[in-house]
Amino acid sequence: MPQLPSRTTPSAGSIQPPGSPIAAVRWDGDAPVIIDQRQLPGQLVHWRLATVDDVVEAIQGLAVRGAPAIGITGAYGVVSGLLAAGEQSRSGALETLARLESTIGTARPTAVNLAAAVARVRAAGEAAVGDGAAIVAAALAAARAIHEQDASACTAMGQHGRAELIGARRILTHCNTGRLATGGDGTALGVIYAKHAAGELEEVITCEARPLLQGGRLTAWELGQAGVPYRLIVDDAAGAAMAAGMVDAVIVGGDRVAADGDTANKIGTYALAILARHHGLPFYVAGPLTSFDIGTPDGGSIVIEERAATEVRGFGGTATTPVDARIWNPAFDVTPATLISGFITERGVLRAPYPQAIARALAEQQEVMGV
Amino acid sequence: MPQLPSRTTPSAGSIQPPGSPIAAVRWDGDAPVIIDQRQLPGQLVHWRLATVDDVVEAIQGLAVRGAPAIGITGAYGVVSGLLAAGEQSRSGALETLARLESTIGTARPTAVNLAAAVARVRAAGEAAVGDGAAIVAAALAAARAIHEQDASACTAMGQHGRAELIGARRILTHCNTGRLATGGDGTALGVIYAKHAAGELEEVITCEARPLLQGGRLTAWELGQAGVPYRLIVDDAAGAAMAAGMVDAVIVGGDRVAADGDTANKIGTYALAILARHHGLPFYVAGPLTSFDIGTPDGGSIVIEERAATEVRGFGGTATTPVDARIWNPAFDVTPATLISGFITERGVLRAPYPQAIARALAEQQEVMGV
Repeated sequence: MPQLPSRTTPSAGSIQPPGSPIAAVRWDGDAPVIIDQRQLPGQLVHWRLATVDDVVEAIQGLAVRGAPAIGITGAYGVVSGLLAAGEQSRSGALETLARLESTIGTARPTAVNLAAAVARVRAAGEAAVGDGAAIVAAALAAARAIHEQDASACTAMGQHGRAELIGARRILTHCNTGRLATGGDGTALGVIYAKHAAGELEEVITCEARPLLQGGRLTAWELGQAGVPYRLIVDDAAGAAMAAGMVDAVIVGGDRVAADGDTANKIGTYALAILARHHGLPFYVAGPLTSFDIGTPDGGSIVIEERAATEVRGFGGTATTPVDARIWNPAFDVTPATLISGFITERGVLRAPYPQAIARALAEQQEVMGV
Repeated sequence: MPQLPSRTTPSAGSIQPPGSPIAAVRWDGDAPVIIDQRQLPGQLVHWRLATVDDVVEAIQGLAVRGAPAIGITGAYGVVSGLLAAGEQSRSGALETLARLESTIGTARPTAVNLAAAVARVRAAGEAAVGDGAAIVAAALAAARAIHEQDASACTAMGQHGRAELIGARRILTHCNTGRLATGGDGTALGVIYAKHAAGELEEVITCEARPLLQGGRLTAWELGQAGVPYRLIVDDAAGAAMAAGMVDAVIVGGDRVAADGDTANKIGTYALAILARHHGLPFYVAGPLTSFDIGTPDGGSIVIEERAATEVRGFGGTATTPVDARIWNPAFDVTPATLISGFITERGVLRAPYPQAIARALAEQQEVMGV
């Protein structure tokens, strides 16, 4: 296998052929390779996650982010860890698998996809008949299936969302939910790409998403790469953009959707939902069914990750506050289901009453997948 | 006169005695000296505005900002320009005065204070009896009066706001409206200082106010200097803070209040007003009567300054977007009067119906000031 570039080496074209679509994560023989999104938009740097520590660091440090992309990375990370352990025996491989599920699956708490993906890889390994090698093969097949299903789900969400929002030509979105956040075209951005491809999009208004500016750094970058017209605004300007008549609809992603439809997503999503309601604009959450967690009854039960004060105290090398500033830095907020016009999923648009619609969609999905 | 430090020299203590309150702007013999707020919170740097170009650059570049502080700086800037011109004749001095009013008064469009302050200085000069020296003396007296009246107004707003919000112990505020924004303790922050002095404040939640982060850089800094307990949040977290029960009331400043109570203020204010209404929280605008513009009938008539894309494309030396990102960067938005619980002014709290309350307060103020 050729020597892959280290995480700090710019490597445009060396991992992905020139002109190929952006891939947030891909499997490369024995390890996942991600785009180190902390370096964007300045540099396109790939990072081979050669160890389990790399996988955890990449997820916790937001080198890879977006609930589906994290799930895929975690799934490949478990396989990579299994391969590295080199356990020949069934019992040894299963022990390693259990350890890896625990280590990687808890790297970030809010998104449901990560825990679910690593659990699925472990279950596939456990269900395999045979020795360590058979378990590795089954785990890899499961991880690949997670990746492929996410890509297909993105495509399906794009088409369902396009049909739902046929008259909305100016879409406001938040954070990054696109090719950098998923295994395919994206969730909310997947809808936007589908609308753009169909000639039904006039403009995207994207919020920058302080503190880590995934909108400004990542969404502006990937929309620019794809030639999708957009304007970037500070988060604070979303209300003014709506009041100015610049927005027909709001579409965001969802990191974890509870059984009742309450949705945890990037901090600021809740405010956008209230602003949309105030201005009479539809507000949609786009997410694959893997983002729905029937085990979480409502938004109040979702663990909201609070991140380090340093994220707010500066950006890049520049201090943005006094060094000892007291900070409250929740990474997510919860949007109550009552503010959500519908959920755009790979199985169509779910409408209120959400508890029934969500339960039905998940049951149908399980049936299709033969679980 | 001692040699004053240049604009790039840290000078804590050399202009202001150690321990003295922060002064955004002060008159120093023949020119205004400001704190260069672009350097905060890293360095406390004073800048002597030795020329009219300096005055305009300081105002346009946001080295000095905050509607009242801009007005005071502009007023002193006119006097400084008059002094530098050294016109002995009455006609020469009046011509210079007219030119200075035009040059300085239009440096920024949205706040009403700047245009009003320089107009007042010019009117005082024109009303003076005598030659150039008499005109300078009258202009300086008017500028000093503007400064002193603003300081008194801050103190009065603090007490009126304290009485109005006696039960509100956790206050959310936006941008910077304090000692760095006014000639005294501030508008919204003036209320907060008064509550703190009275032992009636538990905590301030301050938003950081992208793109220029006046909340994170300036409000966090000056509250820290004053020992007022605060937590800083990204703008996007305001809704989550309200939902979490961390906020009893919202108080913001106002850059220009129209005759009907519609209020232009820092971008994001409008969204905070909607969020406050959604959560059943009182939302107050604190501002001296100099911020009210009876000549502007409503919010739709207010010129909203759109600022450079570079403000959003980076912070400090760090790029936060692709270099060619398309940006929409309005510096202000307009909050409709219907979302405002009351205006905290130096003459008490104005309540709806606002057109009548504002007209009455301005008429009383003119009477008191003998205009």
